[in-house]
Amino acid sequence: MIKREKIASIIKSTNFNRNVTVMGWVKTFRNNQFIALNDGSCMGNLQIVVDFANTPDEILKKITTGASISVSGNLVASLGKGQICEVKAETIEILGESDAEKFPLQPKKHSLEFLREIAHLRFRTNTFNAVFKVRHALAFAVHQFFNEKGFVYLHTPIITASDAEGAGEMFRVTTLPFDNTPKTETGEIDFKEDFFGRSANLTVSGQLEGELGAMALGEIYTFGPTFRAENSNTARHLAEFWMIEPEVAFADLEDNMNLAEDLLKYVIKYAIDNCEDELAFLSNRLTEEDKNKPQAERSEFDLMTKLNFCLENDFERLTYTEAIEILKRSKPNQKKQFKYLIENWGADLQSEHERYLVEKHFKKPVILTDYPADIKSFYMRMNEPDGQGRKTVRAMDILFPGIGEMVGGSQREERLDFLQKRMDEMHIPQDELYWYLDTRKFGTAPHAGFGLGFERLVLFVTGMTNIRDVIPFPRFPKNAEF
Amino acid sequence: MIKREKIASIIKSTNFNRNVTVMGWVKTFRNNQFIALNDGSCMGNLQIVVDFANTPDEILKKITTGASISVSGNLVASLGKGQICEVKAETIEILGESDAEKFPLQPKKHSLEFLREIAHLRFRTNTFNAVFKVRHALAFAVHQFFNEKGFVYLHTPIITASDAEGAGEMFRVTTLPFDNTPKTETGEIDFKEDFFGRSANLTVSGQLEGELGAMALGEIYTFGPTFRAENSNTARHLAEFWMIEPEVAFADLEDNMNLAEDLLKYVIKYAIDNCEDELAFLSNRLTEEDKNKPQAERSEFDLMTKLNFCLENDFERLTYTEAIEILKRSKPNQKKQFKYLIENWGADLQSEHERYLVEKHFKKPVILTDYPADIKSFYMRMNEPDGQGRKTVRAMDILFPGIGEMVGGSQREERLDFLQKRMDEMHIPQDELYWYLDTRKFGTAPHAGFGLGFERLVLFVTGMTNIRDVIPFPRFPKNAEF
Repeated sequence: MIKREKIASIIKSTNFNRNVTVMGWVKTFRNNQFIALNDGSCMGNLQIVVDFANTPDEILKKITTGASISVSGNLVASLGKGQICEVKAETIEILGESDAEKFPLQPKKHSLEFLREIAHLRFRTNTFNAVFKVRHALAFAVHQFFNEKGFVYLHTPIITASDAEGAGEMFRVTTLPFDNTPKTETGEIDFKEDFFGRSANLTVSGQLEGELGAMALGEIYTFGPTFRAENSNTARHLAEFWMIEPEVAFADLEDNMNLAEDLLKYVIKYAIDNCEDELAFLSNRLTEEDKNKPQAERSEFDLMTKLNFCLENDFERLTYTEAIEILKRSKPNQKKQFKYLIENWGADLQSEHERYLVEKHFKKPVILTDYPADIKSFYMRMNEPDGQGRKTVRAMDILFPGIGEMVGGSQREERLDFLQKRMDEMHIPQDELYWYLDTRKFGTAPHAGFGLGFERLVLFVTGMTNIRDVIPFPRFPKNAEF
Repeated sequence: MIKREKIASIIKSTNFNRNVTVMGWVKTFRNNQFIALNDGSCMGNLQIVVDFANTPDEILKKITTGASISVSGNLVASLGKGQICEVKAETIEILGESDAEKFPLQPKKHSLEFLREIAHLRFRTNTFNAVFKVRHALAFAVHQFFNEKGFVYLHTPIITASDAEGAGEMFRVTTLPFDNTPKTETGEIDFKEDFFGRSANLTVSGQLEGELGAMALGEIYTFGPTFRAENSNTARHLAEFWMIEPEVAFADLEDNMNLAEDLLKYVIKYAIDNCEDELAFLSNRLTEEDKNKPQAERSEFDLMTKLNFCLENDFERLTYTEAIEILKRSKPNQKKQFKYLIENWGADLQSEHERYLVEKHFKKPVILTDYPADIKSFYMRMNEPDGQGRKTVRAMDILFPGIGEMVGGSQREERLDFLQKRMDEMHIPQDELYWYLDTRKFGTAPHAGFGLGFERLVLFVTGMTNIRDVIPFPRFPKNAEF
């Protein structure tokens, strides 16, 4: 094909008076003269000036919103406002027509709900161009952060036979037929006949396998899809989402908190440095959205202020026990405004409590540690009971304004006897997890790790409010479209 | 925790006579005096010199292969051969014991088959340390390559409701019970009751969704897990594997070939530049393995020579039709040594033919293009029939020595009428793929892309021979262990 130049590479150029060829989709066509052309390489549109008199009608009438064209012409300084340069078209070729009557994306504002229904076309809007560029930048920053630190990117399995972790409802993966399902002699489903010779599921977390890697390679991270078959139709949950899970040998909870805080600051800074136009657009978008909301629901800060604020402040670190004291004494608790009042130590924190701590009390990201053992997973390291005999584990949750839990992690229980006792108490079968226990039998060592929900990170950085708008094709109950 | 230093950061250091703390796993302990310590951060072991006389027996007897220890002491120049420095231990703490009788990894050579059975521990061997470091480097290089070129990393869905592509057998994803499966009035399984409200599967490729991204963002790539429910128990197939799939708007097959060749050379060069020790080890390993093979099966080149050869030579590009002519005239075809003799144009190429072209005829990577339409997928762009009326498509396969097909791709059929005709011929339901067709209705444009099987790339670069040895926890028929 003719060598085209990407609009991103010329839109801020002042290397004028040369011939260029660009290709892209028509955003608008004003007065039979000015085409706003976008090729996806950047948010901005390149202005194409059409020589109306010398362009055949045939061509002119096909320059419609959504059409794909190839333009060759002279790149010149623009006299118009809002752009440095423009292309004086010499030849225009229509690559793909777009029937203006039928093209769903009219040059007007569409609701996010409508765009979700045409997720295959929403990439062509400014908003989703920006969202997916920021998502890309954050993903790349994650890899760069860990690569610079010497971590090994480990592809833990997506299909697992282990359902021992109990982290949530799982999807079954099978090749067995629903009709004439093979049965054992005792009349149960015979999973020996299934593809993997046993019952298999989609992973809810790569952590346990990640630990196997860390206990040999030292420092690993995963970045892959994870799944929950929960019937949650909310703006914060997906059935399929991406998670980042580092695991570090010879590390304790302190190291773990430092790693998570460093990671979050690094990737946010990377986005700020590399997505200037996209974040400016999204920040402006959020501010405009806010204007339509009642005063009480508006954001206190604009997007850029919020992001910079995260970089410039240490995250607040406190124990669950300290948090409970703050919540007990808090106004909404005293005035019975919380839906779930905090009365006793041991209560699981609800979203309203987390938001109070982060958004009202500390007004910055918060790391809560040392949760009651009863509300946390079997693999978290047990603390010594406190003066009142209360049992806690070396867990941490990182809470973000507007998002809630962004990160969940812990120092892992590396002591075989403690781990076995806890598995027994929680009815977790040791034989199924023999490989996990082996790491405690042969050269165990303190280690720690966490999980970062990637879509929640993208939500925070883009200022979007529905998680279905930050993943290309969201999966949720009754929806696996595209 | 005490601040430890990673062995990678000191093993080549000449910053002597300072105190260091290191932690890791004991590889060997010789003469109650020399510990070879490895913490996973590099292939090399750090020598620890134990002060035998002043170390309690309690400690000495726990310094066994596989045990995890923390050592503080003085970093000094080593008098021994093969190492620059060593640590004169002042304190040794046992972090995790390892019963030498029970620890499966003895300090001797184990077979790859045995290590596959203890995949949770094989990370601690030199071979797998090297393999997974190289795998990491290749993954990072992929992201860096595309990021530098302005591609957007797109997370296409893992769970899909579309089974229209016909790329292979699929795994079903379901929450329906096998007992009392809900039925419709006509007695069929009622997938409306399933989690997604319809029958759903694990993706076999992100390509179709990737095209949706490219037709708006311009240049995208995927890097995620894909699945085949095929009963293939071979050294080249997995049920779960990772694939890289770029899609580029305004690109033709020529651009596609250039992109693929650039990508492969970039990532191989990155591994050579960043995994010197690992590749030296693996190269040596392969040479040793070869010595046990009959002359005819030995590699012509060692690993490093083979990798460098790929960088220094252009891949050979020819059409399927040209390849058929070469194969027809070839010795093994004339002498009837091929299992499948090449007689007519239109035959699908078998592994033996691909290997002949790559390993005997051209002796370098080969890009075959323009395959017969009948043996390729519906989405590949149709060529004009040739003089003899033979129909071909703008497909390309990249064949590598020892590996076979590393990349498969094509220019996509962007013309709506051609695409619809071909879908009809191949009985692919258009209504299920309405979203795919929409990209051809609204501003279609020439575009192209390919799929690179990541594990095959890792196989090639590491010189390993079984694909189960280059992914942490392989999934194949009757196996989903760990």
